[in-house]
Amino acid sequence: MEIALLLYDGMATLDAIGPYEVLRNVPGWEIQTVGPHKGEVRDERGTIALVADNDLAEVTSADIVLVPGGRGNRPLLTDEAMLEWLRAIDRTTKWTTSVCTGSLLLGAAGLLEGKRATSNWLELDELRAYGADPVGGRFVEDGKVVTAAGVTAGIDMALHLVSREVGPEVAQAIQLGIEYDPDPPFDSGSPEKAPSEIVELVRSVSDAARS
Amino acid sequence: MEIALLLYDGMATLDAIGPYEVLRNVPGWEIQTVGPHKGEVRDERGTIALVADNDLAEVTSADIVLVPGGRGNRPLLTDEAMLEWLRAIDRTTKWTTSVCTGSLLLGAAGLLEGKRATSNWLELDELRAYGADPVGGRFVEDGKVVTAAGVTAGIDMALHLVSREVGPEVAQAIQLGIEYDPDPPFDSGSPEKAPSEIVELVRSVSDAARS
Repeated sequence: MEIALLLYDGMATLDAIGPYEVLRNVPGWEIQTVGPHKGEVRDERGTIALVADNDLAEVTSADIVLVPGGRGNRPLLTDEAMLEWLRAIDRTTKWTTSVCTGSLLLGAAGLLEGKRATSNWLELDELRAYGADPVGGRFVEDGKVVTAAGVTAGIDMALHLVSREVGPEVAQAIQLGIEYDPDPPFDSGSPEKAPSEIVELVRSVSDAARS
Repeated sequence: MEIALLLYDGMATLDAIGPYEVLRNVPGWEIQTVGPHKGEVRDERGTIALVADNDLAEVTSADIVLVPGGRGNRPLLTDEAMLEWLRAIDRTTKWTTSVCTGSLLLGAAGLLEGKRATSNWLELDELRAYGADPVGGRFVEDGKVVTAAGVTAGIDMALHLVSREVGPEVAQAIQLGIEYDPDPPFDSGSPEKAPSEIVELVRSVSDAARS
């Protein structure tokens, strides 16, 4: 399995690194990082950088493409080189996947037309603009397109993909290897579960960042 | 709050990036990356790189130091420059923290003497060699030292730290922001919960990698 992991300036690094740590542990699976430019890619905060080992022209096919999200992807939603790359690589994939607002990029490339999909809960409705049917859930599989909800949901999605491809035993072994036995000190990870004042706080911070 | 995030060749990137995505969202908290050398740091698989913006000499104090784990940290366990840096920065911290086998580095630096601590389940017993008392759990707080279990446990630990420092509301808001509402497709994240044949499989793969 050849995996293309998209990296770009302004991304949320955990969107990529969460699934990466799952997928890299499958025997025989190979991962390549790819970005609009080769080299350092800084996150939306600017304080941490990943390295894209390839530019878009160097990675033209993949069995799995994984598109992370992040506030910095807004300029890419109208970047024709990026959107054309997504359309082209999608023609070669077995699975086209995204985490968080990475699904907006898939949508902008026209890849979610008529599909059920998800995203970060704050941006879920934006998927409608791309002809997608926004649904809830930790991740959504519709045909070969698998979209995950916000940030950490990429870990769950990656375990699902491994299970679909090589079976539950390998997925379970990887889950144990990364000791993914989550036990957050609060139960506040979704707008349905978080206290309403916390939901309003996060929504207002997000709105402020966008305006 | 000034946070020093240690990066090194052979680390597991999720050990660092999980907590990073929590800590970076606390208003006013600043994070610096630091490594044995400045620049690219490749993970144990070699397929993904983070960037250390500072070398050890450039970061001499921090309110929080975070030490990730990874198979590549074995040479560092006897690297006197690294161990001296850990001892020196620990003298300045409010919290000294680790994820996964990062606790072995704290132990090698002499910082776990007489302390309860945790690590990846496979390496838990190795903590005894450093005078620590290995205990289970997702993370362990003993005085100012907080050690997390394997890889993904760093996310839980970071939410705990935020709650201890700035209160549960901020921690809950961040949990919602990163949509940390985990729902893994299997319940196989700890040796107590995983099927015994999966535990044996992971143990044998780990043993093979070490020999």
